[in-house]
Amino acid sequence: MSTILAIDIGGTKIAVGVTTREELARDARFTTLRKEPVPAPGDPPTVIARVLEIAREIAPASGYDEIGIAIGGPLDHERGTVVNFPHLPGWKNVKLCDEIARALGAPARLDNDANLGALAEHWLGAGRRVRTMLYMTISTGIGGGLIIDDRLVHGVASAAAEVGHITVQTDGPLCDCGNAGCLERMASGTNIAREARELIAADPARGARLLELCGGDRAELTSEHIVAAVTDGDPLAMEIWERAIRYLAIGIGSILHVVAPPLVVLGGGVSQAGELLLAPLRRELARHVFYVPLDQISIVTAELGHDSALLGAAVLASHSRL
Amino acid sequence: MSTILAIDIGGTKIAVGVTTREELARDARFTTLRKEPVPAPGDPPTVIARVLEIAREIAPASGYDEIGIAIGGPLDHERGTVVNFPHLPGWKNVKLCDEIARALGAPARLDNDANLGALAEHWLGAGRRVRTMLYMTISTGIGGGLIIDDRLVHGVASAAAEVGHITVQTDGPLCDCGNAGCLERMASGTNIAREARELIAADPARGARLLELCGGDRAELTSEHIVAAVTDGDPLAMEIWERAIRYLAIGIGSILHVVAPPLVVLGGGVSQAGELLLAPLRRELARHVFYVPLDQISIVTAELGHDSALLGAAVLASHSRL
Repeated sequence: MSTILAIDIGGTKIAVGVTTREELARDARFTTLRKEPVPAPGDPPTVIARVLEIAREIAPASGYDEIGIAIGGPLDHERGTVVNFPHLPGWKNVKLCDEIARALGAPARLDNDANLGALAEHWLGAGRRVRTMLYMTISTGIGGGLIIDDRLVHGVASAAAEVGHITVQTDGPLCDCGNAGCLERMASGTNIAREARELIAADPARGARLLELCGGDRAELTSEHIVAAVTDGDPLAMEIWERAIRYLAIGIGSILHVVAPPLVVLGGGVSQAGELLLAPLRRELARHVFYVPLDQISIVTAELGHDSALLGAAVLASHSRL
Repeated sequence: MSTILAIDIGGTKIAVGVTTREELARDARFTTLRKEPVPAPGDPPTVIARVLEIAREIAPASGYDEIGIAIGGPLDHERGTVVNFPHLPGWKNVKLCDEIARALGAPARLDNDANLGALAEHWLGAGRRVRTMLYMTISTGIGGGLIIDDRLVHGVASAAAEVGHITVQTDGPLCDCGNAGCLERMASGTNIAREARELIAADPARGARLLELCGGDRAELTSEHIVAAVTDGDPLAMEIWERAIRYLAIGIGSILHVVAPPLVVLGGGVSQAGELLLAPLRRELARHVFYVPLDQISIVTAELGHDSALLGAAVLASHSRL
C-alpha cells in the first residue's frame, strides 16, 4: 500500500489530502482532507511551514511514499520549481519539491493546477476511456491541460494549453496578457460578469432580473447570476451567454484544428451550467468546425468538481512517467 | 541494407523514389526518382497500375523492403485507406496500402502529405535537433503536421494539424470549408493573390508594379509576384504581405498557446520568401503572444523543398512506430 500526500497551494486557500493508490483508483477521493485560508503573509516560508505542519498532523504512522503538488504557473515541472506565483508575495524561483521532499522524506513532483485538473479527469473522471483529451477550465480565467497518448503535453516553459489566450475576436478588447481579443477576455466568468455590469449600467431596465438576482448591487454580479437568469429566459442574460458561447466555440474550434482530440472536458465554475452550456456550444461548434468530424468528438463537463487539481496532484505523485 | 520505395500521389503529379535507410539518413535523397503527370483518367486502377509499373522498372534486384505513400487526406493511416481524395475521380475508400503491398511484396504505410512533410523536416531537415515541432505549409492552401515527442499527432480521423482552418478573422470572409475567417482564407498563397487582384481591379494605378510583374494580366498574378514586388518595396504589395503576415501571426500565436512547441518550421511556396516572411512574422508574433516565451521558440523555414512529402513517405516506411 502506497501512501500519497497531495498539496494544492492557491491564491487564497491551501488544501492538503492523504490517500493511497488503491483508494484513489477505486473512489477518486482522500481519506483525510484539510482546507484552510493561506496563512499570512503568504510568503514561501510561512506557507510551506503550515503545509508541512498539516501534513505531519494527518500523516499515517508509516509516513508518505509519494507527494504531488498543485500550484499556479509559471513553473518548471521537471525541476520542481515555482518560477513565479503572482498571487502570493515572494514566490519566485522557489524549489518547492526539494523543500517538501526533504522535510517529509518522500519524492515530490509538481505541476500547475489546470494540468493537474486534466490529469485527474483523465485518470479518474470524464476522460477514463480515452488516451487523448483536452481539459478546459472556465472560471475567473480560462486555462487548460492537454493529454496526448496518456501524457501531459507541457511545451516550452510548461506553456502548452494556455488556451485562454487564443485569439477569438480579432482586434477585440485588450486582455490582461497584452493580446487583443483573447478567449479569456471574451468568455471567462469574470468577463461575462463584467460585460453584464456594463450593459446594465447602460440600460438598468434591461438588467432588472439580473439586478434582482444580485441584490440590487451590480458590483456583486457574478457569472452564476447570469446562468441563473439564462435558466429563467432573461433576454439580457441570454444575449451575454450566447455571445460568450460563440467565442468559446471559436476558441475550441481552433484547438480542434490543432490536435483533434476525441474528448473535450470542460471544468471550472462556468461549466457547472451543464447542458445550458453544452447544447448551444455544440450547435455553435458546428458553424465553425468542418475539417474535423464533430461526430467523433465528445464535449462533456468535468466529473470531479472543486478538488480536481488536488486529485491530479495525487495522480501525478502515483505515476512516475506522466 | 533496407530498400525503401516512396510514392507521392498528388492532384496533378505522381512521384516515385527509391532509397535506402542508410542513404536517407546520410543525404536525405533518392537514388532513383521519377515524376510524371497523373495518368488519365486519374481513377484508382489507372494511377495504381502506373505507380506499380514505375516501381517495377526502377526496382533493385533485391526488390523493396518497405513502402511509404503520401497522398492528400482524408485518410485512415492505421488501415492504410484513402477515405476520399477529392482532386482525382473515384478515390473513395481505396485500400491503397493493401493493394501496393500485395503487388510488390513489402509492407506499405501511408499518411497525408502535410504530415509527411512534417516527418521529413523532423528526421532529415530543420527539426533534427528537437523532439516536438509544428510544421506548416503555406502554398495554395495552408496545412500542417504536429510532432510531439518524435511522433505525429493524428487526432480523430487524422484531422490534427489542419491549421489552415483556425479562425483568425472573426466574422471574416467565408472559407471554402464553411467557416468564416480561416487562416487559409486570409493568408494562403491563393488568397494573397486573390486579394491583390481585387485591389488592382479597384485601383489599377496602385497595382502598376504588380501588373508589370505578371505581364499585364492580373488573372496571372501569383503570390510569387507579390513577394517579388515586396522585395522592390512596392507599397500595394507590402500592404497585402503585411496583412497576410499579421493573420499568420494570429494563427501561429493561437497554436503556440495550445502546444508551445520549441520549433515552428514553415514550408510551402510562400515560405520561400525566407527572411522577408520570418522577420515581420516574428515582430508580429510578439504583439499576440505573451504567455508563451517566444525567446524559447524558433521560427524557421523548411530545409527540404519540393520533395519533402516524398521524403516523409520514405521516413514513414523506415520507422515502424511513427
